[in-house]
Amino acid sequence: AGAREQIGAVSVVVPGTVNVEEGTVVKAPNVPCLDGFRLTEALTRALNRPAILENDANAAAVGEMWQGAGRGHHSIVCVTLGTGLGGGIVLDGKLWRGADGSAAEIGHMCVDPFGGVACGCGSRGCLEVYASATAIVRMTREARPRHPESVLRTGESMTSEDVYRAGLKGDELALEVFRRMGVYLGIGLANLINILNPEMIVIGGGVVNAWELFEKHMHQQVAERAFPLPAANVKIVPAQCGDDAGLIGAAWLAINR
Amino acid sequence: AGAREQIGAVSVVVPGTVNVEEGTVVKAPNVPCLDGFRLTEALTRALNRPAILENDANAAAVGEMWQGAGRGHHSIVCVTLGTGLGGGIVLDGKLWRGADGSAAEIGHMCVDPFGGVACGCGSRGCLEVYASATAIVRMTREARPRHPESVLRTGESMTSEDVYRAGLKGDELALEVFRRMGVYLGIGLANLINILNPEMIVIGGGVVNAWELFEKHMHQQVAERAFPLPAANVKIVPAQCGDDAGLIGAAWLAINR
Repeated sequence: AGAREQIGAVSVVVPGTVNVEEGTVVKAPNVPCLDGFRLTEALTRALNRPAILENDANAAAVGEMWQGAGRGHHSIVCVTLGTGLGGGIVLDGKLWRGADGSAAEIGHMCVDPFGGVACGCGSRGCLEVYASATAIVRMTREARPRHPESVLRTGESMTSEDVYRAGLKGDELALEVFRRMGVYLGIGLANLINILNPEMIVIGGGVVNAWELFEKHMHQQVAERAFPLPAANVKIVPAQCGDDAGLIGAAWLAINR
Repeated sequence: AGAREQIGAVSVVVPGTVNVEEGTVVKAPNVPCLDGFRLTEALTRALNRPAILENDANAAAVGEMWQGAGRGHHSIVCVTLGTGLGGGIVLDGKLWRGADGSAAEIGHMCVDPFGGVACGCGSRGCLEVYASATAIVRMTREARPRHPESVLRTGESMTSEDVYRAGLKGDELALEVFRRMGVYLGIGLANLINILNPEMIVIGGGVVNAWELFEKHMHQQVAERAFPLPAANVKIVPAQCGDDAGLIGAAWLAINR
């Protein structure tokens, strides 16, 4: 019973749109059985403790602000480059969730409206189809015909990690793919800088390991496209909490509930 | 002296980046003599009254929220289609000015990064070069060779108002230009919906008079590109305060200082 007493609340993050006040999962495209489920009510009843619900990318932004790259900053945009591209926006120290809890869908900002690749969301040319692990693999496959000398020229089960490792060794195909990713990511960040003028942009997720391969191209687009004052002041940095960002953010949300 | 006593404060709006707390004009591209000027200090000293400084598009957003289309709403994005394209963002009833006072530069969100037209800001394909009075005139000139039958085929001093009037009469050139404007504006609004998930988007400025000519194309892009839930809930409406939006917003800022 002693150990039980120490758990004051339960905090759950979900990859999807949530209604924080009602504690309901609105829409979780990859966990559809949760759609419409009153998750905090069920957890509170089962565990006899307060339960908190949050979107995963929002929680990651809070985690990076509390214990990661964003410490000491209050206006942060957090971009998570994973299977898709997730976003979290913290303004004046508070998560901006939007009118329906669906704000910060940064991965579905359009950065190439006409020539662009089709996105799972139904639109075309979303940032996510150029800047995510999935995008890295797709762009590598597309570029193979132009690079018959590449170590990446064959292989069905290739991952974004394989492309990163090839890039570190100077493989031209891999470098082209990360250059392309950096250009699109930079266009997206320039938009966020012009719209939100944040103090800091924190970039996390597995693909951020390839920072040195895309950084230059990303910064170049920001320099060309964002307004000089906010572009000079914004810090664009890799995340520091790794896969724990969401967990740490969830803890903060429970502690400060 | 009686009338003098009734003036409690002075509120000034400036087309440029301002530091509201310091009362300083940071950068006003079209009024460069104000750059760096401590405007509120000068006004307070000269008029012996508190003075308030704000960006013009921010003040217009506040004006529309207080007395215009945004009454009763708390999370609003205001887009002003004038010579350029100005923006104001109100979140939870408060202006979001950004870390440096330069947020809401919605006109410089990139909506066509590669093929795009060069913008005065130094970037390419900014929303402003497709959705503003200046853009209407430029796009009309560009489209002339394809429309030798148009009433707009000649004339050096053509205005966006002329293009609007021709459009009302069914002129194909004018209709093509407003269709193009509506498409780009819709792409920009879809981005704002996915990033900010506002309750309402208010569109003002002189060009909004042509609402019926671009509305359909704008809504179609929003429907195709924004997430279904926030797109279904957001109200996209014309402004109601006309040219007085900034003035009304300035008054609100003085009253609620």
